[in-house]
Amino acid sequence: MPESTPKLDLEVRVRYAETDAMGYLHHAQYLVYFEMGRTELLRANGLRYRDMEARGLFYVVARVKLRYRLPARYDDLLTLTTRTVKVSPVRVDHEYEIRRDGRLLTEGASTLVLVNRDGRPTPLPDEWYAVLRSDSRD
Amino acid sequence: MPESTPKLDLEVRVRYAETDAMGYLHHAQYLVYFEMGRTELLRANGLRYRDMEARGLFYVVARVKLRYRLPARYDDLLTLTTRTVKVSPVRVDHEYEIRRDGRLLTEGASTLVLVNRDGRPTPLPDEWYAVLRSDSRD
Amino acid sequence: MPESTPKLDLEVRVRYAETDAMGYLHHAQYLVYFEMGRTELLRANGLRYRDMEARGLFYVVARVKLRYRLPARYDDLLTLTTRTVKVSPVRVDHEYEIRRDGRLLTEGASTLVLVNRDGRPTPLPDEWYAVLRSDSRD
Amino acid sequence: MPESTPKLDLEVRVRYAETDAMGYLHHAQYLVYFEMGRTELLRANGLRYRDMEARGLFYVVARVKLRYRLPARYDDLLTLTTRTVKVSPVRVDHEYEIRRDGRLLTEGASTLVLVNRDGRPTPLPDEWYAVLRSDSRD
Repeated sequence: MPESTPKLDLEVRVRYAETDAMGYLHHAQYLVYFEMGRTELLRANGLRYRDMEARGLFYVVARVKLRYRLPARYDDLLTLTTRTVKVSPVRVDHEYEIRRDGRLLTEGASTLVLVNRDGRPTPLPDEWYAVLRSDSRD
Repeated sequence: MPESTPKLDLEVRVRYAETDAMGYLHHAQYLVYFEMGRTELLRANGLRYRDMEARGLFYVVARVKLRYRLPARYDDLLTLTTRTVKVSPVRVDHEYEIRRDGRLLTEGASTLVLVNRDGRPTPLPDEWYAVLRSDSRD
Repeated sequence: MPESTPKLDLEVRVRYAETDAMGYLHHAQYLVYFEMGRTELLRANGLRYRDMEARGLFYVVARVKLRYRLPARYDDLLTLTTRTVKVSPVRVDHEYEIRRDGRLLTEGASTLVLVNRDGRPTPLPDEWYAVLRSDSRD
Repeated sequence: MPESTPKLDLEVRVRYAETDAMGYLHHAQYLVYFEMGRTELLRANGLRYRDMEARGLFYVVARVKLRYRLPARYDDLLTLTTRTVKVSPVRVDHEYEIRRDGRLLTEGASTLVLVNRDGRPTPLPDEWYAVLRSDSRD
């Protein structure tokens, strides 16, 4: 089995449209970044989330939690670290950290549940689960 | 046939998340408002766009044009006027005006094309076309 | 002193642009709704957040937490209940519930901190604090 | 004077949050991409838009026009080409093309006006105008 990647660093440039009248990256936008981190963490492990959806498997967000320490601003180049911390055939937990120049701005955590097209919890096929499992800190 | 409504006024309150670092309503957001105007204009004429999609009919945007005259800001209460200006079984043209306290801030126009689930142009069923046609300025 | 409103119900119609390819209201969008709830809860108590910002006072989000139980979809008419649960001169905690036809879809909680233009914690002027305090469940 | 770049190609990966219930990249999102293209085109010419704003100069969008030919979807890797087509000390016109695997999906054009903090048209300082002018097709 190829070596898996338990975490991924992704650079994200703050877009003007993502800022708000306070001049900050809007706080809802971090969830969009976290989602990008999950997409790229899967890709780094040889899976594409688009292929999962094409097979009728959808990760839906069940819980999220964020702690905002310092604001980000337009044009800031941020580093998002995405980590898989726990995985089962129907569920996956991630943790996230966003830094600018090494300084921690925001932390988050999420729990996703895998469902089919009807929204019912569905286990991951074995070959995909093997990849995800090797990709966790458990 | 019930009398149709060729135009609709909709009040929209600018959300904080929709502003940008300049303190303005972000210019992309107007297209989101126009889409709301189309939904409500259909509803005022007894159609629900969600029902069209449930029957496999999708309006896709083919062209848009916007002219921004004056900025809007957080918490402004805007009036969006949506007008159907031309309609055929596979296409519909709208015009839009956004005002605050009667003063024109933004104007727009769009052309939508009706497609099926595969993205192919598809004519509107007769009973829906009758409603939309009566709802235009032609 | 006029009677205060410790909670507020706000109706929100799900916009097409707020949905994602799964057909659901995107999970980040709930934070935008919560922010709308806070704006309207303040307004119901005679304060306008835009006036606070004009005086150089900004509520920044320090923590949020969401639990997603059931999805919302395009054109759903949701009821967002926003409650102030704890308030001090520099901080306020809210809780949120989103329902469709009485059924709970999503719950959330947030902590905001009041800062000045430089991002430093700043106490609320007494007259505004009196309003907010009467508006909490403490 | 260093050689200027009259156009810039930027790769953009479609985010899940940017899609809609039709499964397409939402049509408003293209304006956000165009804005990214302008930021990066300036940067390629040695200017940072954030520095312009820090000096009290703001480009506001006066007009935009889009033509949507083919849809983009989640996870698509798009190439946005941004071109400066006309420039004066107070105004700049751009054109945009978005391609996937060489195939044209969307075209756009915009006119921006330079304003100061009060929203009044303001000429670009000479040294910046020199850069922008050399960066146009005039």
